Amino acid sequence: MHFLGMDGGGTGCRAAVSDRTGRIIGRGQGGPANINTDVEQAAENILAATRQALGNSGVAPEGLVAVLGLAGGAMGAARARLGGLLPFARTLIVNDAVTATRGALGPGDGIVAALGTGSVFAVQRGGIIRQFGGRGFLMGDEGSAAVLGRCLLAQAMRAADGFAPMTPLLADILTEFGGIEGIIGFGNRALPAEFGALAPRMTGSDDPAARQLLDDAADHVAHVLTVLQDGGALPVVFQGGLGPWYARRLAGHWPIAAPLGNGVDGALEMARQSEEAS
Amino acid sequence: MHFLGMDGGGTGCRAAVSDRTGRIIGRGQGGPANINTDVEQAAENILAATRQALGNSGVAPEGLVAVLGLAGGAMGAARARLGGLLPFARTLIVNDAVTATRGALGPGDGIVAALGTGSVFAVQRGGIIRQFGGRGFLMGDEGSAAVLGRCLLAQAMRAADGFAPMTPLLADILTEFGGIEGIIGFGNRALPAEFGALAPRMTGSDDPAARQLLDDAADHVAHVLTVLQDGGALPVVFQGGLGPWYARRLAGHWPIAAPLGNGVDGALEMARQSEEAS
Repeated sequence: MHFLGMDGGGTGCRAAVSDRTGRIIGRGQGGPANINTDVEQAAENILAATRQALGNSGVAPEGLVAVLGLAGGAMGAARARLGGLLPFARTLIVNDAVTATRGALGPGDGIVAALGTGSVFAVQRGGIIRQFGGRGFLMGDEGSAAVLGRCLLAQAMRAADGFAPMTPLLADILTEFGGIEGIIGFGNRALPAEFGALAPRMTGSDDPAARQLLDDAADHVAHVLTVLQDGGALPVVFQGGLGPWYARRLAGHWPIAAPLGNGVDGALEMARQSEEAS
Repeated sequence: MHFLGMDGGGTGCRAAVSDRTGRIIGRGQGGPANINTDVEQAAENILAATRQALGNSGVAPEGLVAVLGLAGGAMGAARARLGGLLPFARTLIVNDAVTATRGALGPGDGIVAALGTGSVFAVQRGGIIRQFGGRGFLMGDEGSAAVLGRCLLAQAMRAADGFAPMTPLLADILTEFGGIEGIIGFGNRALPAEFGALAPRMTGSDDPAARQLLDDAADHVAHVLTVLQDGGALPVVFQGGLGPWYARRLAGHWPIAAPLGNGVDGALEMARQSEEAS
């Protein structure tokens, strides 16, 4: 029996295959694997990455115990459809936040705060991982780069209307985007990652509008972490592009830890454990 | 010379044609005319509604001075493209909020707060109309039904995670939508109007979560109106599905007036005035 660990999202997927001892026999990568947007495409790209990882090892996909951590993996219906398209001996599909958490924390208790283009939180207690927050650009992802960027653009339009104080950064944004009309046009076509590209200008700025939005975001993240700590003091791993900024900003509240590994490591470890348990 | 007044948006357009004295010689209606989403379709539907209004009057489209108040009419590039597709003797394209304001207020000074699926504000002073706010579902439309509905769904997901207090209405929403997964699925496919359909359940409820979101929205609208009043006490006309609720909620702050007419009336009046002025 061999083991497949996979981490997949909107931009691509990465795979690793190991034997029973944990020795890696190959790695692979492929295209997007977000089952919330395209299950068939995800299945194709997952198989391609798996075949690349298997290489000429002689191991067949049918001989793999697989754990797939995928964007959209919390959606039960999509998970069931994907499962039917894959040939593995056993397949466990979980949200990519789960495998990222297992990779970051190893087997120990802790909290992962993933703050990149989107945001999501996970808690591991006694080996059980629970995911919180996230929920996407439209109705969630509080504290994420994409939401911060969108708030900055919205604030620039409010300032242009006189409903909020104009600041140097907001004035720059209005000029660069071509005023309110340009911002609306950008919003009609931009992906969350393009909104998120504005976040580094906020974290690297002393502008009062940026500072206010970042204060609100940090307060929100602190509130979420306080609820998740539930009176405890678990180590917190901050990940994603804004992870280092939040780690500095919220230092002193709780122990802050570096990640032990990535989502592929976590998925592989979960696959090997599932075999031991079975 | 005859005059065409038109009011067009995402769901349809309405036209009226009058002679120099203001006597209506015909009315028409047609399909969507949102030039922010489809300029060619808007041109077609505008012409169809115009021909219907002209009927067998013997007046040709080429003999019309036209004022078109259209959704997306604030977007200069789209406005220029549409202008090139229309045969009228003179064409003035403005945002539908402008013609709605002129229709609601007549020639007098005042403020229109349009709070329906979206939201937009306009001020008329000395015959000059300026538009504020709005800016769409993604980055603006504060206080609108669509944004309120989206906030309610986001709050239900936060409550399910333990990050906000669970209330009876939030619990009902979670059950009806099929939990967090159901809400995310709805958000992936729903139009703003479908989010907005939740607003009447909020305004008709004593639920603490609904009350909090409505308090925030009312505070925001009050702030916007305070800025727009600029120390004055202009009459405010509340329009849109949530208009009556805001009018009751904000009564006593400023004089509240009923609308004199609709957007077609306003467009027609603007068309006749433009001829007098030229």
